Amino acid sequence: MFRQSRSIIAGVLCLAAGLAAQDRSPKAVRDLVREYRQQHEVEIVRSYAQLLSLPNLASDTANIKRNADAISKMLEQRGFHTQALNVAGAPPVVYGELSTPGAKHTLLFYAHYDGQPVDKTQWASDPWQPVLRPSKPEPGLPGTPLRDGTGDGKVIPFESLQGPLNPEWRIYARSASDDKAPIQALLTAIDAVRAAKIPIGVNVKVFFEGEEEAGSPHLAEVFRQYGDLLKGDIWVLSDGPVNQTRRMQLYFGARGVTDLELTLYGPGRVLHDGHYGNWAPNPAAVLVDLLAHMRDANSHILIPGFYDDVRALTAAERQAIVQSPDVDTPLKQELGLTWTESAGASLPMAITQPALNIRGIEAGHVEEKAQNAISTTAKASVDFRLVPNQTPERVHQLVEQFITQQGFYIVRQAPDIETRRQHAKVIKVTWGPGYKAARVAMDDPAVQPVVSAMEQTLASPVIKMPLLGGSVPMYLFTDVLKTPVVGLPIANHDNNQHGANENLRLQNLWDGIEVFAGILAGAEKNWK
Amino acid sequence: MFRQSRSIIAGVLCLAAGLAAQDRSPKAVRDLVREYRQQHEVEIVRSYAQLLSLPNLASDTANIKRNADAISKMLEQRGFHTQALNVAGAPPVVYGELSTPGAKHTLLFYAHYDGQPVDKTQWASDPWQPVLRPSKPEPGLPGTPLRDGTGDGKVIPFESLQGPLNPEWRIYARSASDDKAPIQALLTAIDAVRAAKIPIGVNVKVFFEGEEEAGSPHLAEVFRQYGDLLKGDIWVLSDGPVNQTRRMQLYFGARGVTDLELTLYGPGRVLHDGHYGNWAPNPAAVLVDLLAHMRDANSHILIPGFYDDVRALTAAERQAIVQSPDVDTPLKQELGLTWTESAGASLPMAITQPALNIRGIEAGHVEEKAQNAISTTAKASVDFRLVPNQTPERVHQLVEQFITQQGFYIVRQAPDIETRRQHAKVIKVTWGPGYKAARVAMDDPAVQPVVSAMEQTLASPVIKMPLLGGSVPMYLFTDVLKTPVVGLPIANHDNNQHGANENLRLQNLWDGIEVFAGILAGAEKNWK
Repeated sequence: MFRQSRSIIAGVLCLAAGLAAQDRSPKAVRDLVREYRQQHEVEIVRSYAQLLSLPNLASDTANIKRNADAISKMLEQRGFHTQALNVAGAPPVVYGELSTPGAKHTLLFYAHYDGQPVDKTQWASDPWQPVLRPSKPEPGLPGTPLRDGTGDGKVIPFESLQGPLNPEWRIYARSASDDKAPIQALLTAIDAVRAAKIPIGVNVKVFFEGEEEAGSPHLAEVFRQYGDLLKGDIWVLSDGPVNQTRRMQLYFGARGVTDLELTLYGPGRVLHDGHYGNWAPNPAAVLVDLLAHMRDANSHILIPGFYDDVRALTAAERQAIVQSPDVDTPLKQELGLTWTESAGASLPMAITQPALNIRGIEAGHVEEKAQNAISTTAKASVDFRLVPNQTPERVHQLVEQFITQQGFYIVRQAPDIETRRQHAKVIKVTWGPGYKAARVAMDDPAVQPVVSAMEQTLASPVIKMPLLGGSVPMYLFTDVLKTPVVGLPIANHDNNQHGANENLRLQNLWDGIEVFAGILAGAEKNWK
Repeated sequence: MFRQSRSIIAGVLCLAAGLAAQDRSPKAVRDLVREYRQQHEVEIVRSYAQLLSLPNLASDTANIKRNADAISKMLEQRGFHTQALNVAGAPPVVYGELSTPGAKHTLLFYAHYDGQPVDKTQWASDPWQPVLRPSKPEPGLPGTPLRDGTGDGKVIPFESLQGPLNPEWRIYARSASDDKAPIQALLTAIDAVRAAKIPIGVNVKVFFEGEEEAGSPHLAEVFRQYGDLLKGDIWVLSDGPVNQTRRMQLYFGARGVTDLELTLYGPGRVLHDGHYGNWAPNPAAVLVDLLAHMRDANSHILIPGFYDDVRALTAAERQAIVQSPDVDTPLKQELGLTWTESAGASLPMAITQPALNIRGIEAGHVEEKAQNAISTTAKASVDFRLVPNQTPERVHQLVEQFITQQGFYIVRQAPDIETRRQHAKVIKVTWGPGYKAARVAMDDPAVQPVVSAMEQTLASPVIKMPLLGGSVPMYLFTDVLKTPVVGLPIANHDNNQHGANENLRLQNLWDGIEVFAGILAGAEKNWK
């Protein structure tokens, strides 16, 4: 029943479109979409701010549901048939279909609507009260981050906005870039092609996840349970940033991830570090020693066997990296760095290797709160970025084996006194959910229709990267759904992703709208 | 003028005392003092709670003055002539004199009335709202410190107190043990000998410092400026804890100290640790690496030359340590430890060596607040405990030389972007005030009158330690005032000194009163 009515709606839309636009060349499409956007900038930004005002931690069940409902509504307003894909214990996946009569192929879009945890004390404004600010490249204030992306702090009120907007302005909010931006861009792209009566050539399915930042612990289950619904020709996965040169790029794989919380136990009560220092084990010092044995200052991981499963790059992948624009020079300038952890390797080359990142370390107190005391625990939060063919399971095994060999006693819960009396260097080891990396061949013919549509829209070759440094569970698309996937990010690279003052540069939203519209309009004819 | 009236008061007191008590043997004195205390326990505890209710951070000028005024008043009520010893920028030293007509010798007492900074979130109750609680040896709650000293959390109301009090109860407040306890004990000792009409045999001078926990930055200046006032035969310095066996001890030296705040600068803005991990220098990892190169997990300091100035123990000092009671076994049991940092050395032996303590380390976030991000800075707070003949100046030089040799660029202020663009591994190095260690010979005849009076009171040999692990600026007494000094602590060892839930066990207060009274009454006749 609803399928029929959807087809009728779609047919009417298609008919209307067919009657109008004559020149459907990629350039013509891009110009029409740009014109639409230029006429609707304020409206687009206000609509996006509304979406960003919904708190979106995956664990915040009530609010995550509000996000899902809002996005479903946005889809329905555009003729999508929507459905919440539910599995127990997971935020709903917002799924939507838009059929195109006569289309032979189906494009699937992936993005996620949940965001990273926030430390509000570090934000210039509330993470869920979006604001628009001009951005200066380098306030360079001594003692503050060189570039926190908040410019001079001036806020541009939404109420008095008048187009055209300065494309360098940024909208600040949690998930402004990661990863609600593609949702807004895709929906606006649909609005634009419709308004310009440009036919959408393919069937469209959208899949918006609600717990990517929590490690996508249920994504495999959703894929298995809803596999029939998720059939299609190619996934366009939009997450992460564009190239640091600001040019758009495609990525053909992404690092996997697995994270680790460590708590090391020292003396059973806080001790005066004069009376007991260099006798009572200082948990901060012991943890520091362990971490220093796990990786060196050049980011090389010292855990035996850690690199054994790493699959080498192909010649083509290596060449693509070598041919990619130099991002190291401008980035080092921007970030105030004279060196990198990568022993000389360029950024795109470095991220083809695994990483051990110290996300946080905490023991005792520093600066004016420092006490002459030995603390009872020391904590570190670590994540490992994995590359093909590493697996989280094998990494867990290697890491725990190493920790044990270093003389530590692993527990899963805070130890009681008897455990502490019986074992030296008691350490609590807790793994978060994780997943492996994926890397598909850049010349895989299955992904070419999207690659070509994108290049036709941009009127230039797109930067192709074998691997995204950040993690997105691309392997599930290839392994579980057996469908090719390509990563197409739209956010600016300097978006403070995962940190405070996350932001989206308006020009990146505009570019995303154009590229998505180009693919919707042009992909179908690229299939051989 | 006032000198005369003081002498008259003292003379009257002496006369009154001379008319009464017949048996003035150390045992008789102790029994009379004990009897007085037993009759006044509630009153003593309430008076002490009042003193502890005054917030006493050295930097809190208004409150530190309230402490000084309150203590001056307590002294004046006991016939002391008081005076605030002021030097610019320092909290006042509370100084008081009590002359004894005919006395040939002068005892000087040192304690401090300021306390360590507090982290209120870690306290079971407000640090400056003293409470009395029973203490259980080992709640052993999983996940909490084995022994935070707060027993089962039950509070005994001051209002309804009735003697006799359980001597195992503890009073919880900042400085309950460190170091207002000796102030209270000494004043109560004076009350007790007066009430029992026991004559005080010596002249008494008290010197209560207000910034010991801030590193005593002005103590040398005070000593120089008020040297004439501070003449006397021996200083009794009361700070630190009694032996871990609960037996009283004397110490003949103390480690020096110098502390260090380190801030390491990473990328100029927070970065996604997937996209930039193992390329952008992670400041936490770099700092961990530096610290691990500064000391190993067995507390051995790896900085070249660090041990060069260490003066070896004498045979007598070594023997005193070997003969001291075994504290390692019960302490390891109490603290839930199977090993120590000291490579097998006992606690009293370990603390005769220098220490590098990590007081705190802080970067990014851990556990539920962890973000997949590379932070912009990492911080560590370190203190070095020094032994004779090390000096802070030489240690600063060695440490900075080492940091530089490790490839770091030292700054004193947060660096601007140009500095960061020009130098790798920019690190801010800030030294706090510090001072060197002191160690006087245990058989120095100058200190024997106090040692003997104490042993006569306890009716047993006292434990003698060459060095206190914690730092007190004893060297100033010997170097600037040219007066012998001996350390006589009264606080329980398990007092959570410098940490949360600092506390004083009532029996330790009672013992302190008896020992101080014994010295006041008995020291004079021990001079040859």
